[in-house]
Amino acid sequence: MPILYIGNKNYSSWSFRPWLGMTVAGIAFEERLVPFNADAKNPDFAAFSPTSQVPALVDGDETIWQSLAILDHVARKNPLSGLWPESDKDRSHAMAISCEMLSSFFALRGACPMNMRRERAAIDVTPDIAKDVSRVETIWSTCLQASGGPFLFGTFSLADAMFAPVVNRLDVYDLPVSVDTPAYMATIQALPAWKEWEAAGKAETWVVEADEA
Amino acid sequence: MPILYIGNKNYSSWSFRPWLGMTVAGIAFEERLVPFNADAKNPDFAAFSPTSQVPALVDGDETIWQSLAILDHVARKNPLSGLWPESDKDRSHAMAISCEMLSSFFALRGACPMNMRRERAAIDVTPDIAKDVSRVETIWSTCLQASGGPFLFGTFSLADAMFAPVVNRLDVYDLPVSVDTPAYMATIQALPAWKEWEAAGKAETWVVEADEA
Repeated sequence: MPILYIGNKNYSSWSFRPWLGMTVAGIAFEERLVPFNADAKNPDFAAFSPTSQVPALVDGDETIWQSLAILDHVARKNPLSGLWPESDKDRSHAMAISCEMLSSFFALRGACPMNMRRERAAIDVTPDIAKDVSRVETIWSTCLQASGGPFLFGTFSLADAMFAPVVNRLDVYDLPVSVDTPAYMATIQALPAWKEWEAAGKAETWVVEADEA
Repeated sequence: MPILYIGNKNYSSWSFRPWLGMTVAGIAFEERLVPFNADAKNPDFAAFSPTSQVPALVDGDETIWQSLAILDHVARKNPLSGLWPESDKDRSHAMAISCEMLSSFFALRGACPMNMRRERAAIDVTPDIAKDVSRVETIWSTCLQASGGPFLFGTFSLADAMFAPVVNRLDVYDLPVSVDTPAYMATIQALPAWKEWEAAGKAETWVVEADEA
């Protein structure tokens, strides 16, 4: 059984992505949580991760890192999982938005770290944060209009997992969103796997000051 | 025939990746170059790119953005292209390092923009730049030792395309590299497609001050 190494469930947005995708898709794995130090890093990560970052998946003699690469790896090994959308066109679209998530939205990610435990409270929304939120909403609405929902490509796919931490951010930082966004957020937050991760994150007592915005 | 929209060949490292991959793999496409404004952006990009960034691929009624997503799209449509390494294990590894390229190396990318025209001259190598270079060299040497070279996974793959702009950076900023790195750099720089792009970049007269480090 593959081993998924993750960081704190309260804070580690990159860990949450493959954990959520694999859990929703019903892919068996052993979870190993290694908490962050105060700086949201941990030298112990080097023992299982070539980048000294989480997440990392150890699958037999293979080690896969980077959340999207882990999801792609398990999706290819489990072709009936539905982690990649079925049609070639949707798959290319899902890859584009997943790569955009991986490489973009720095204002939102920097100012609003994922934080499952945070009590909902608004922050000062800078123009750069507003621009990131607007682009995320455009990505979601474009997908949902084409697919009919409730997930980005109709049924749950790894693209939903890639954007799941943004759902927490929009929620706990009380960011202004357009009229159609709360329904998608509710769909994601209603997943049993979301609830399980969220409850575990809320129960953690480790505090990473750098992620307490 | 798909249309690949790109920015300046001198500067646009993200455009270079799919252009190089598709050209080396012999995938036919029409190239449309739309130059950057002085700020390395251009509002005209919005006409063909959902992110207002280059590159973007228009393939029939599909638009694909993000360099890695474009390469994945054409690789899946052209399964004999060799753009993805053949074995599942190599493919997972190629995906991991390509995602790492997409999401990392900010010190190197910020201080040393790709610049085909730049005369080789050393810069002040900060510890963060040195750390990025060291990690890139570890990625490359791990692949080359496993595959035997001359490319990361033996024959040319999209992973080589994803890292190609780093080859320019190591060269023109005269960054200190380990003993095995120049041979891989020479392999990439000897590709006819590299030479064609480089010559075109050198012939451009547009100057983007933000990318002249």
